[in-house]
Amino acid sequence: MSNDTLDTFHGWLGHSAAAADGQMQWGPFTPRAFQDDDVDIAVTHCAVCHTDHGMLTGVWGPVEYPLCVGHEIVGRIVRVGPKAKDRFAIGDRVGFGAQCDACLNRPFPYWNTAASAAPAAGDGHQGGCVPCSTGQEQYCPEIVPTYGVRRNYDGTLARGGYATHFRAKSHFTFPLPPELPSAHAAPMLCGGITTYSPLVRFGCGPGKAVGVVGLGGLGHFAVLWAKALGADRILGFSRSVGKKDDAMALGCDEYLATLEDGYADAIKEREASLDIILCTASSVGEELESYITLLKPGGTFVLLGNADGGKLQVPTLPMLMKKINVAGSLIGSPAEIRDMFKLAVEKGVKPWVQERDMQDANEALKDIAAGNARYRLCLVNKDA
Amino acid sequence: MSNDTLDTFHGWLGHSAAAADGQMQWGPFTPRAFQDDDVDIAVTHCAVCHTDHGMLTGVWGPVEYPLCVGHEIVGRIVRVGPKAKDRFAIGDRVGFGAQCDACLNRPFPYWNTAASAAPAAGDGHQGGCVPCSTGQEQYCPEIVPTYGVRRNYDGTLARGGYATHFRAKSHFTFPLPPELPSAHAAPMLCGGITTYSPLVRFGCGPGKAVGVVGLGGLGHFAVLWAKALGADRILGFSRSVGKKDDAMALGCDEYLATLEDGYADAIKEREASLDIILCTASSVGEELESYITLLKPGGTFVLLGNADGGKLQVPTLPMLMKKINVAGSLIGSPAEIRDMFKLAVEKGVKPWVQERDMQDANEALKDIAAGNARYRLCLVNKDA
Repeated sequence: MSNDTLDTFHGWLGHSAAAADGQMQWGPFTPRAFQDDDVDIAVTHCAVCHTDHGMLTGVWGPVEYPLCVGHEIVGRIVRVGPKAKDRFAIGDRVGFGAQCDACLNRPFPYWNTAASAAPAAGDGHQGGCVPCSTGQEQYCPEIVPTYGVRRNYDGTLARGGYATHFRAKSHFTFPLPPELPSAHAAPMLCGGITTYSPLVRFGCGPGKAVGVVGLGGLGHFAVLWAKALGADRILGFSRSVGKKDDAMALGCDEYLATLEDGYADAIKEREASLDIILCTASSVGEELESYITLLKPGGTFVLLGNADGGKLQVPTLPMLMKKINVAGSLIGSPAEIRDMFKLAVEKGVKPWVQERDMQDANEALKDIAAGNARYRLCLVNKDA
Repeated sequence: MSNDTLDTFHGWLGHSAAAADGQMQWGPFTPRAFQDDDVDIAVTHCAVCHTDHGMLTGVWGPVEYPLCVGHEIVGRIVRVGPKAKDRFAIGDRVGFGAQCDACLNRPFPYWNTAASAAPAAGDGHQGGCVPCSTGQEQYCPEIVPTYGVRRNYDGTLARGGYATHFRAKSHFTFPLPPELPSAHAAPMLCGGITTYSPLVRFGCGPGKAVGVVGLGGLGHFAVLWAKALGADRILGFSRSVGKKDDAMALGCDEYLATLEDGYADAIKEREASLDIILCTASSVGEELESYITLLKPGGTFVLLGNADGGKLQVPTLPMLMKKINVAGSLIGSPAEIRDMFKLAVEKGVKPWVQERDMQDANEALKDIAAGNARYRLCLVNKDA
């Protein structure tokens, strides 16, 4: 591979919301203009996140088509900008996640398109960004998601990793430890870090008991990380008993099916026994009360997705009586992503990943939407 | 005053929910049996809390009549149990707040009535109570509120401070600094500490900007404490402009009326500018979204009351994008109460208190319910 100056990439493009139903079309697209601190990545792996499906349908907000999704990207570097040469070289195996930019304390305006919204007046702008100054780039008010928006330097549409190549800002590009298989690293870059970050933030480790609500891609990672971080006890929740064997194999000490008889009694018996509950389910509803019952005084319920149509009904009285926190959490910072990879190698964390050919991206997306993944699908570019 | 062994107190008794409408009746009652670590207080002052009204009507849960309310109590000690003599003497001026007991790591069972519920199975019991071991007694699962429940040692109904005397567990009895007027200290014991505790917990001080939602008894304290703790900026919110002058006089730098034209624009201009918002209002509703807009990344919205009929509608997407915490908080610990009194003296904090004769308790309660207090009423036993 050489320092190619490709100006056309190829990828799976969604031309309308229908693309989410298996109608993405393979075709060429023009990446944004290459910047001095960019690298180009020849994509070898891109795992499939629920967000990919939701972005195509527009549930996360209006999108602009054609849209190329995918933000759990692994590949080899084929081009290095002059300001990235101190850290990256052609041929390096790297990963890229769900965030492609932040203000990084660059003074406003740092992009040049009328389509960009002007930043708001509060802090976090104009060179004094608290999140960017404190290693929490994912909470920068000017966060740019990896695909689907025009808030890049040059006003082009950000493109994802269901493609031959990905143009990557080097600050958000991560070298991969050689021990970590690419198909394992890829889904860690969004599903993994989204669960790792809040577990670390809220002190998961020896002496702590953790609940994980929902056993999909994120939930399965939450169990793996809680185990790797040394939690004393892990309690998995899913609607039915169907995933019980998987939950126990992943590392749960116990499993509760929220729709089964006896759930209410089981909650009562375990009252005030958990320190942290990570909620990866898309629906919480009335069960939130049972999760708060399970939390110890001072415990935290962490919301990781846009659950319940965007409105969570929080019961106030137990919030007061037990000093409960309900916290939101979004992916993780670059520093946390590097720490996560270290932990994965040290503890031999092995996510459950099913590989698919990049050619079969439409089928994979349909399987994700139908909840058929056990527990993450990863598209592989066999030619790369 | 002597070491009286009174076995009958007199106070305002609610015989039904109608008592909240000004129908409490003065009469005798039997206090719970005196314990070795108790003190008896001749009540000189008892401030009027919204909770007093709500407990009489039963909105906080079923209650047992006749009920004597009041949990912002100041008075002089008239009897000291042998296990309290190392800390208290006859004649001491002391305060007592909204919590009259906790497990304090005493092994279960520590009370002796069949009416008590058995403790749940989680931690916080049987000698290993994390809240009681870490100076957070108010979050003990076995918390006993100052009045209205039977969870005392001897199974009698806990009685409050709208009375001649109050029987007090010494652990929750606080010496008052001589500089602090009794009518100022009394409302600090619930309204004051309820706002002081979360401000300290979430780091209120120089460099921080604080919002206070609702300008009643609690809200007025929140502004006073935020100022005393050195917050850079205090933004007050109330429904109408009616309390604006008061808010500014209390220490607000700015005031927004949520029901006035221009509120939405005002929010937009102040986006991401607050670190902490204390919510003292009984209704939040759709405005929660505007408060979250005002929070900086990582900011905290603190819920201090059982708002919105017990269910808060939390918008999930901004929770994730800005790492927002929604936190519950309940009164404060004994250690925090002592610190609060110190701060009040050091910074000369002067709550706005209107004194009323203890004889006029029914009128005072009606005024509190009607929102007529500016900003706390304090009953005074002129004969004490």
